[in-house]
Amino acid sequence: MRTFNIKPTDREFAAQVQEKIDNLNKPKGSLGELERVMLQMGLIQGTLSPQVLHPSHVLFGADHGIEREGVSISPREVTRQQMSNFARGGGGVNVLCRQHGVDLTLVDVGVDCDFSEMAGGDVPLLDRKIGRGTRNFLREAAMTAEEMDRAVEIGVEMADAAAAKGCNTLSLGEMGIGNTSPSSEWMYFFQGVPLDLCVGAGAGLSEGGVNHKLGVLTEAAQNFMRESGIESATPLTAPEGWRLPFGQRERPFFPAYAAEIIRWFGGFEMVAAIGAMLRGAERRMALLIDGFIMSACALAASQLCPQVLDYCIFAHVGNERGHQLMLHGLGVRPLLALGMRLGEGTGALAALPLVQSAVKMLDEMGNFEQNHITKYF
Amino acid sequence: MRTFNIKPTDREFAAQVQEKIDNLNKPKGSLGELERVMLQMGLIQGTLSPQVLHPSHVLFGADHGIEREGVSISPREVTRQQMSNFARGGGGVNVLCRQHGVDLTLVDVGVDCDFSEMAGGDVPLLDRKIGRGTRNFLREAAMTAEEMDRAVEIGVEMADAAAAKGCNTLSLGEMGIGNTSPSSEWMYFFQGVPLDLCVGAGAGLSEGGVNHKLGVLTEAAQNFMRESGIESATPLTAPEGWRLPFGQRERPFFPAYAAEIIRWFGGFEMVAAIGAMLRGAERRMALLIDGFIMSACALAASQLCPQVLDYCIFAHVGNERGHQLMLHGLGVRPLLALGMRLGEGTGALAALPLVQSAVKMLDEMGNFEQNHITKYF
Repeated sequence: MRTFNIKPTDREFAAQVQEKIDNLNKPKGSLGELERVMLQMGLIQGTLSPQVLHPSHVLFGADHGIEREGVSISPREVTRQQMSNFARGGGGVNVLCRQHGVDLTLVDVGVDCDFSEMAGGDVPLLDRKIGRGTRNFLREAAMTAEEMDRAVEIGVEMADAAAAKGCNTLSLGEMGIGNTSPSSEWMYFFQGVPLDLCVGAGAGLSEGGVNHKLGVLTEAAQNFMRESGIESATPLTAPEGWRLPFGQRERPFFPAYAAEIIRWFGGFEMVAAIGAMLRGAERRMALLIDGFIMSACALAASQLCPQVLDYCIFAHVGNERGHQLMLHGLGVRPLLALGMRLGEGTGALAALPLVQSAVKMLDEMGNFEQNHITKYF
Repeated sequence: MRTFNIKPTDREFAAQVQEKIDNLNKPKGSLGELERVMLQMGLIQGTLSPQVLHPSHVLFGADHGIEREGVSISPREVTRQQMSNFARGGGGVNVLCRQHGVDLTLVDVGVDCDFSEMAGGDVPLLDRKIGRGTRNFLREAAMTAEEMDRAVEIGVEMADAAAAKGCNTLSLGEMGIGNTSPSSEWMYFFQGVPLDLCVGAGAGLSEGGVNHKLGVLTEAAQNFMRESGIESATPLTAPEGWRLPFGQRERPFFPAYAAEIIRWFGGFEMVAAIGAMLRGAERRMALLIDGFIMSACALAASQLCPQVLDYCIFAHVGNERGHQLMLHGLGVRPLLALGMRLGEGTGALAALPLVQSAVKMLDEMGNFEQNHITKYF
């Protein structure tokens, strides 16, 4: 896999951005989380006047071999149906992209169908199909190293294409029935959280369904550890700045196996998103991170290149405990908590106006000096 | 004071709206809080296809006699300075109104200054000055009954003016140094929450400052009770549907004194906002409710006419405990929790895109039947 050269943002510049924020005519800190976004956007872009330019959303779709184990309430046909629906403009993601003027790209990286008959939708559906879904990770790696490279390169291609159009703020979404399962496995291996806390109801499993899913994922994790040799590996210390939730620093932690963990469990759409995130960060784009699955991709990307997190704006947390724990472990606070669990990147898109508000306020609000206002805080 | 004839929304129609929501092609409930907004907007407008039309923001500004008691970190001059700043287009409220295409109206209902010299701002500043601030409610009623009527009528005028332009979604904001103090008093009397839980740091008081504020407000509450005769009144039972927080049903509760409580402590800008809310609800407008002060106005309005709450969309809760308790007592969940405490109505405006997303999704998303998608939930 290619290596990415992501520069950490310049912490020394933070004082200058913060000074500008504190001199806006408002009580200090009174814009709350929006001030945090101002600061992060200023650091990402290396300027006191960050902007959101040509915001773009890339939605990757693919199917998962693990779906055959009954880990999802929905059958895999829904991946194809919804991708077609998005191409016709009828998905939640379409509504939000139209509302916020976001450039939408749909990419088939591995949906289990033939889309060639489908022509003339409202939104082009790019054909980058690697295969008709991944293999079943209960028994074998979901993808080969070569397939993983291809998925990463598709993500890179999409980040580059967005940048070529002038995009500096990229959001990512997914459609892939079964993809909460790889997300839970990644969380388990990368954050050391007990697997039962990583597994939830997905789009709406019953309690029995969740228990079945936990059983499948437990067995899959054991099989992977045996096959990969991770079982006998020495746990490593966490990299600098990395936090494990709830003081679980003593748990096994295997970033050196990151690529293998990603490959064994990952979906094509998830690995493509990782590629887009890493390339986006390399190009100093702000990355809007959606819900559980995209957060898992950001987590996985951070195992390959921790600096990527400097570029991630976590947009939304749902009601699922696993996602809440994951974000806690990453040490980040999301902008929204609306209980959404639609996927598609809708949580990221719903938060875009807040990011735009933050940079506009930093740019357009008067400051105390120019407005002769008593500085009050 | 005029009476308002606010019709409760039609609960029987809710089943029809909910059926439309549940048939959108998404897992049931997967749009979380946005589905609640869809339902509420459908009920307010009495249609399966609610819309946000010509969203308008009215910001009322006024000064407070209680400011003389040192209950605020900022001097009253800041009210005038900030109103001028808004008229020049340099406030947070201006940035958000421009961003979201919201019609902004600034109304001076009682700022302690003469704005007549100030002409030619970006935004017109309407002169509806009732007086140069209210009286000091530590010793006497903040306004006369006649002044209160005038403030209500100014609010009515502004709601009518917005409606005349085609507005069906009204948000309200305020500027008035010292106006967390009347808000805390209203909360104390209307929700029966102990006063120390109603009082916070406002724009940034120190711990000592908060204690001083609590002392002033405690004394003011006692003076009011003695003067008004409320001390010897029999506590009434809460009206149907009304909730007091934390099972405090046994505490004194005096809705019959609502108008007197509003008049004694209120600011002109707050009473004008109450008038706008009541008139807006009467005209079936959706009301976007901002932070602590506007929530206190919605609370006070609900004491005069409980049905107003059917029309209120609570937009934001900050980090202040008092506001969190107030919303808990009202039994409502706000859309955003961004730790903002700027006032001006910025929390309401920040949430507007979410309300727009909700109604657009209800209108534009495909449903299961038309899209031949396997209904999955």
